Amino acid sequence: MIVDGQHRRTIERDGDAIVVLDQARLPFETAWLRLQSVDDVARAIRDMHVRGAPLIGAAAAWGVALAMAHAPTDAALERAIAVLGATRPTAVNLAWALRMMRERLTPEPASARRDAAAAAAAQICDDDVRICESIGDHGLPLIHEIAARRAGPVRVLTHCNAGWLATVDWGTALAPIYKAHDAGIAVHVWVDETRPRNQGLLTAWELAQHGVPHTLIADNAGGHLMQRGDVDLVLVGTDRTTRAGDVCNKIGTYLKALAARDNGVPFYAAVPSPSIDWTIDDPRAIPIEERSGDEVRFVRGYGGTVELTRSPVANPAFDVTPRALVTGLLTERGVATPATLAELFR
Amino acid sequence: MIVDGQHRRTIERDGDAIVVLDQARLPFETAWLRLQSVDDVARAIRDMHVRGAPLIGAAAAWGVALAMAHAPTDAALERAIAVLGATRPTAVNLAWALRMMRERLTPEPASARRDAAAAAAAQICDDDVRICESIGDHGLPLIHEIAARRAGPVRVLTHCNAGWLATVDWGTALAPIYKAHDAGIAVHVWVDETRPRNQGLLTAWELAQHGVPHTLIADNAGGHLMQRGDVDLVLVGTDRTTRAGDVCNKIGTYLKALAARDNGVPFYAAVPSPSIDWTIDDPRAIPIEERSGDEVRFVRGYGGTVELTRSPVANPAFDVTPRALVTGLLTERGVATPATLAELFR
Repeated sequence: MIVDGQHRRTIERDGDAIVVLDQARLPFETAWLRLQSVDDVARAIRDMHVRGAPLIGAAAAWGVALAMAHAPTDAALERAIAVLGATRPTAVNLAWALRMMRERLTPEPASARRDAAAAAAAQICDDDVRICESIGDHGLPLIHEIAARRAGPVRVLTHCNAGWLATVDWGTALAPIYKAHDAGIAVHVWVDETRPRNQGLLTAWELAQHGVPHTLIADNAGGHLMQRGDVDLVLVGTDRTTRAGDVCNKIGTYLKALAARDNGVPFYAAVPSPSIDWTIDDPRAIPIEERSGDEVRFVRGYGGTVELTRSPVANPAFDVTPRALVTGLLTERGVATPATLAELFR
Repeated sequence: MIVDGQHRRTIERDGDAIVVLDQARLPFETAWLRLQSVDDVARAIRDMHVRGAPLIGAAAAWGVALAMAHAPTDAALERAIAVLGATRPTAVNLAWALRMMRERLTPEPASARRDAAAAAAAQICDDDVRICESIGDHGLPLIHEIAARRAGPVRVLTHCNAGWLATVDWGTALAPIYKAHDAGIAVHVWVDETRPRNQGLLTAWELAQHGVPHTLIADNAGGHLMQRGDVDLVLVGTDRTTRAGDVCNKIGTYLKALAARDNGVPFYAAVPSPSIDWTIDDPRAIPIEERSGDEVRFVRGYGGTVELTRSPVANPAFDVTPRALVTGLLTERGVATPATLAELFR
């Protein structure tokens, strides 16, 4: 990822702490947040200073590492896992990363846990970078094929932010776009605003940092753009994908998947394996986080925040796109369909 | 309609002028705007101080009447029609009202035009009230039937504002809801925020004025609410409906129609006959207004406006819901399907 022309990661170690790019202030300000304890990390995840399913997993791993640096006991380990695990219910990467940390640390003697935890968290971050880059490599041919059969840029619609801001680096859904852009393929990205949290602003910001042409649109616009033939591909991330290929992602993704099917536009989700929930067959079993109504009520912009409404509001944060609407799943092992996903990871 | 407990119309005559409820300031302030010339009216329509397809038609008729009061010549008549006709391209009610005014006034001698124009504009307003109330009466049984087969309120999802703010009184899509509420049927309305102009705030405001329970949601949420069985009926307005029953309405309506079909939720559009374009068979012939990107870039709230983004933006204002997704059309003559619409008005 590139921030103000410099190569960075969204989460970096800094002595006894970690620093993260503060996503609650982007794109209005570029600020880094220093997190020194497991409670700092939990708060940052809950309040979405750190967000995006893969990055939540990586941050949680570092949260455990910070707890182990403070007190390498079994009780501290279990408390850290409990505190972090309670922050966000939908993204399965969080539970996955905490399970990895528990498995790695439980057998270690207390004296070894501090270093083992830091090594394990660093490993989860490095693995995330590798996984995301592989998703980019496997998704690149998709974009290349479209580019080969039409004049003008390949027009990709994306929802929410599944770029490098949502991961340690590269991104999931945006990784193939960066790979294509870097390979000289002309790409134009329709960026859904993604109310109520407006993560589309994050996507527009990171695409601009990388120099990828893009246009921000209201979430309402995507169906019409597909009807008039202006979208070649829909590419989104996921917070949890079932073994059967049902894709839980940011609220509103399902509506774009319906429009894609209705207009013959391919719909792909980028699915790193830590986002796959192998334990769930019925997508209705996925807990859908209901977030604070303040996210609907208040809108942040340059120079301040306004109160949009005093009406009663509801704020479900995710929806599930049923497998039947999913053309393909981009994973670090290659491209699957919902039917072949399990086989790919056997 | 009820504003602060008083019965009003959205457009009222006031001596040599008209007064309209200023919808660009609602719900943050309740203010009435006095329009004294055809150019005042054209500006009010273009900048959405006056909005909603039926109300645009009514306001345009009064714009012609103000022009005739100033100078009852053929040239002034044609200029008024041209200026008003150029304000908004998509709503067919505008062209319909201007055609009505031309037909009514062209045969009149100059000396009679001032009074004839005022009478014709008043008639268009009165007809709109009557049409909307009839739509309410014809839509009421739909809500009644749902109420009869379930405990708890009838849960209606609506998009944009097709209430009395969009008409002279009663509204189109909201008319059956007001009729049901007044008849003692429990109704709860899911109100789509309707980015980028947030007309959902207008809908929430007028439902609150009338005492109808409602919840404001991001446009992204409706599909998920339908998936989890929380929507009994989708009810929207229209800016132009083809003779074949394709419904052009506020951008994003199409996405809700797709979700309604996917979840077996009935999708109805309220279609007053002046919103029907009998000349168009192919919905792709409907001009889709592209409005200023500032509507995406800036968000107004209580106490001010914030700049949301400095990214490139696009802002198509309408989309078309194909007839195949439309369960029924509520008109002043009764309920039609796309297949029976033309017959109903033969």
